[in-house]
Amino acid sequence: MPADITVAVAFHSGHGHTARQAAAVARGADAVPGARGDLRDVSRLDAALWEALDAADAIVFGSPTYMGAPSSVFQAFAEATAPVWAARGWRGKLAAGFTNSAGVNGNKDNALVRLAVLAAQHGMVWVPLGLAPGGDYSTSGTAGDPNRLGAFLGAMAQSPSDLGPEAAPPPADLTTAEHLGTEVAELALALARGRSAEVAR
Amino acid sequence: MPADITVAVAFHSGHGHTARQAAAVARGADAVPGARGDLRDVSRLDAALWEALDAADAIVFGSPTYMGAPSSVFQAFAEATAPVWAARGWRGKLAAGFTNSAGVNGNKDNALVRLAVLAAQHGMVWVPLGLAPGGDYSTSGTAGDPNRLGAFLGAMAQSPSDLGPEAAPPPADLTTAEHLGTEVAELALALARGRSAEVAR
Amino acid sequence: MPADITVAVAFHSGHGHTARQAAAVARGADAVPGARGDLRDVSRLDAALWEALDAADAIVFGSPTYMGAPSSVFQAFAEATAPVWAARGWRGKLAAGFTNSAGVNGNKDNALVRLAVLAAQHGMVWVPLGLAPGGDYSTSGTAGDPNRLGAFLGAMAQSPSDLGPEAAPPPADLTTAEHLGTEVAELALALARGRSAEVAR
Amino acid sequence: MPADITVAVAFHSGHGHTARQAAAVARGADAVPGARGDLRDVSRLDAALWEALDAADAIVFGSPTYMGAPSSVFQAFAEATAPVWAARGWRGKLAAGFTNSAGVNGNKDNALVRLAVLAAQHGMVWVPLGLAPGGDYSTSGTAGDPNRLGAFLGAMAQSPSDLGPEAAPPPADLTTAEHLGTEVAELALALARGRSAEVAR
Repeated sequence: MPADITVAVAFHSGHGHTARQAAAVARGADAVPGARGDLRDVSRLDAALWEALDAADAIVFGSPTYMGAPSSVFQAFAEATAPVWAARGWRGKLAAGFTNSAGVNGNKDNALVRLAVLAAQHGMVWVPLGLAPGGDYSTSGTAGDPNRLGAFLGAMAQSPSDLGPEAAPPPADLTTAEHLGTEVAELALALARGRSAEVAR
Repeated sequence: MPADITVAVAFHSGHGHTARQAAAVARGADAVPGARGDLRDVSRLDAALWEALDAADAIVFGSPTYMGAPSSVFQAFAEATAPVWAARGWRGKLAAGFTNSAGVNGNKDNALVRLAVLAAQHGMVWVPLGLAPGGDYSTSGTAGDPNRLGAFLGAMAQSPSDLGPEAAPPPADLTTAEHLGTEVAELALALARGRSAEVAR
Repeated sequence: MPADITVAVAFHSGHGHTARQAAAVARGADAVPGARGDLRDVSRLDAALWEALDAADAIVFGSPTYMGAPSSVFQAFAEATAPVWAARGWRGKLAAGFTNSAGVNGNKDNALVRLAVLAAQHGMVWVPLGLAPGGDYSTSGTAGDPNRLGAFLGAMAQSPSDLGPEAAPPPADLTTAEHLGTEVAELALALARGRSAEVAR
Repeated sequence: MPADITVAVAFHSGHGHTARQAAAVARGADAVPGARGDLRDVSRLDAALWEALDAADAIVFGSPTYMGAPSSVFQAFAEATAPVWAARGWRGKLAAGFTNSAGVNGNKDNALVRLAVLAAQHGMVWVPLGLAPGGDYSTSGTAGDPNRLGAFLGAMAQSPSDLGPEAAPPPADLTTAEHLGTEVAELALALARGRSAEVAR
């Protein structure tokens, strides 16, 4: 008997690139039978947002990397979670993260560390990307490989600074984001089954 | 029907302080019915180590913080996991971490980030400490509080540089480490139930 | 012939604790003959701010640690430096950092890493705290020691969550912040002398 | 009157790729009149190493990124600096860092953070790369650009896992490493001039 689970995607996007990545994460969750992706823009801190996040089995955090860190809009959202933090409201929920920037590295790794630290502050369990590195990792790799950017903590996307969101990030990075959504949804399902089995005993 | 699970504690200790923390993590796992802590010193990279870690449902990484990072002995172990990494052998396993140093902060946070990065490299799922901060976090806190050091990513312990392992870290830090072991064991049990339920369908 | 130099302190404070730390950094700079501290609240992004920071020989970044990272107000400031970044306007300037939080660790180390990453984005040269760890680092330490919190990348202060800025952070943390201001001012003076000697040749 | 300064390059290389990067850093220092690069392999912890590092005006730390962090050989070197640390022997010296890995990101950013943390432990002043991001940062970038990888804290190089050191890292990454050596040497010269001017007053 499959548990129905929800993967919320709590993201901010400045110019639309990270929004495409967020939509891909949600699609990846939707692709798992019994799971549903729930896209939530955190630039609007209303009651609907908090209800959705409280109800979710997993929250995937996403933000552009601006000057080497998640955006101020995302951080304002993080600060607005303080009452949830104080109540330990999200403890044991799954979490994961993704980020987009123009630079190939561009301190995206630092931004993902920050997202993982936020999850840890809440006592949330961190689901990594779970893909081997592609792209230039070996000479047989291609720019179309999932995880062409060689990330581990979460999903990375890279959008040249002079391309709009209709043209970037490239398909490989959206496939990578979909994978993260699927990964989180599958774990959330397994965990929901395990937790309800425990209750049933 | 409870699944039997094992929480391996893969640690290095230079002078014995981190070993006491490791033993506390294992005790915390043992305290959970259906769970077993399995203490493994990673300074010895033999076949028994790899078999134990492969068989474990969760691996808790532990190391002193030396000059701001996990020890070279721990890092040698991390490098020796490269074949497991290439085979994606630990993907989906649970992971967590702990560290001890003399300084109150002493870059222990950086050491825990490094342990979480290692877990992410393996596609392992990171279980944070899950305790609210104690100690000086408020004036009603005491030095005997669990998580007196205010850690989130994992368990911290602090041992003054002139005290041997018979006298440090203090009981509060060992209680904190026990909590981490319990936290990991409970999640590992829930997940094992969920994964076997999936197979059973 | 002493070069006159300015150490700007670019800070955000939510409740006043970090403001006291910032004032201490400025005092520490003022204490160096030939140097001047220039306190700048970055919650107001006006022309006077940018002129002051452009004119400064060093910028010390300061923010509370909120949910494990610098505040959204500080990050909004960081994002507003993008035009300076694009023009490489602060390249070669000195930088340093400080942070306050309620938890003893509380991911302050992660916040300092983020400040150092911001400096690196700008090509700024990072001046660390430069103090040995005090406090519980050894049994002969006391809570009144400079650097009682055992920080390295920058200055840390810790204010219990139920004390207002009139009562926290404690004097030891303000002494630590003063030290950082002095450290930065002395290096800025030496560097200014060296750079003018170069021009004079 | 130019001060003669030395930039030590304290590196470990497992397979030769990082050694080529290290040699490029030293060349970049040598290219500055009055400066000298001094290449030092830290896998040999002998008296000559410590004398060279103590005498240097700047130390550039370099290591491959293995499993997301500097190598165990490099960390063993870091631990062997403990007596220097206790004596505050390198306080005020300049520091910088570089790393090579097979993945495009591959947690190289985390490895550079660790090198910066080591420098901060010693009270050393961190010199960042100081180059704008190249490569895919914009559609007008090329794979031959300096800083094609978009690093800030230090110099990154990327070598596909199936290419030996005769074929990787690519020339762009060696140019980037040279730039770091030049950057450090120029600052070391300016600082040496300023510090001797101070003494002369």
